Amino acid sequence: MTHPLDRLWQTVEDRRTADPDSSWTAKLLSKGPEKCAEKFGEEAVEALIEAVKGDRDALTREGADVLYHFCIMLASRDVALADVLAELDRRHGTSGLVEKASRDG
Amino acid sequence: MTHPLDRLWQTVEDRRTADPDSSWTAKLLSKGPEKCAEKFGEEAVEALIEAVKGDRDALTREGADVLYHFCIMLASRDVALADVLAELDRRHGTSGLVEKASRDG
Amino acid sequence: MTHPLDRLWQTVEDRRTADPDSSWTAKLLSKGPEKCAEKFGEEAVEALIEAVKGDRDALTREGADVLYHFCIMLASRDVALADVLAELDRRHGTSGLVEKASRDG
Amino acid sequence: MTHPLDRLWQTVEDRRTADPDSSWTAKLLSKGPEKCAEKFGEEAVEALIEAVKGDRDALTREGADVLYHFCIMLASRDVALADVLAELDRRHGTSGLVEKASRDG
Repeated sequence: MTHPLDRLWQTVEDRRTADPDSSWTAKLLSKGPEKCAEKFGEEAVEALIEAVKGDRDALTREGADVLYHFCIMLASRDVALADVLAELDRRHGTSGLVEKASRDG
Repeated sequence: MTHPLDRLWQTVEDRRTADPDSSWTAKLLSKGPEKCAEKFGEEAVEALIEAVKGDRDALTREGADVLYHFCIMLASRDVALADVLAELDRRHGTSGLVEKASRDG
Repeated sequence: MTHPLDRLWQTVEDRRTADPDSSWTAKLLSKGPEKCAEKFGEEAVEALIEAVKGDRDALTREGADVLYHFCIMLASRDVALADVLAELDRRHGTSGLVEKASRDG
Repeated sequence: MTHPLDRLWQTVEDRRTADPDSSWTAKLLSKGPEKCAEKFGEEAVEALIEAVKGDRDALTREGADVLYHFCIMLASRDVALADVLAELDRRHGTSGLVEKASRDG
């Protein structure tokens, strides 16, 4: 079964060529990568504020917004979600270790 | 096969109880939700800057950092990644439509 | 002559008690500190994106938005701009030195 | 008497040509505008988190960091603080009104 994140990505990909008047994804992508990056930044701020407040339901909802606008930001630069996931596996996959040393040397 | 994001989540969960001196995840979680939220915010800023610059390789790498610190932020508030993914499905699952209308009314 | 930043602060202070329907400042303050913090975060993201893009006119405009929402965020928590400025002077005033050592040890 | 923000700006300007090994300002500026924008974004995140938490002393301190890195970000793109302040006055100066209509109308 397809993973929800991959389904989300597929949705974003499918919406690329949709009518900007009928699709929020298409509308945002039509505004260019800077606008997509800005929107992602706004959603990240909203999510982290809920994390600080400790509102778990709101964090769940804002977290979904973060993932959605994360995918749109990637798509706006033709970066595939699969490549980001491959990068995750490259770092954490074999050993299960997540060490700062391997992140930023 | 397990999805890379679920593997990442599992890794974060497994590290919760690890020694903060040997695990970056455990170290960050031990500092509390505010610090985890702050770190997520920093990674989000780094990723969006790469999106604005248009450096696709850097965006891929920073994107992986975003997902990793996103999971840590969720874990710091005992929000399960599965709940965020369920929220995504609730919004986008059946119709495949991703409309602003359904997001913030 | 009053400094522009102090005039801005005075304006924000004066608007505290204004009708939220007629004043953006009053409207934002009426929504609480979290919303003021969120809006500041959004403006910060917009400004830093213009800095990355190198659009100097846009950075000037967004920079003004940052200072304005910075003051609103302070006001939402009853932190006086004067206290922030005193903190600046405490750090940089006598020596003119701005060293990381003195900032975060 | 010089305003603290103008003194801060003068300090940043003076440090432009300093030795990056002895001055944090010079070191950050030598890394380029993207890095200065990133650092400003980090400080903005830290300040807004303190605003959400409601820690007034920490907000005062982080607020000072925001103003300092704001000036560095401007300087990294050769945008003068005076131009940002003039923009503030243009918007709020004569009428004292701070209306959303005049901001993004």
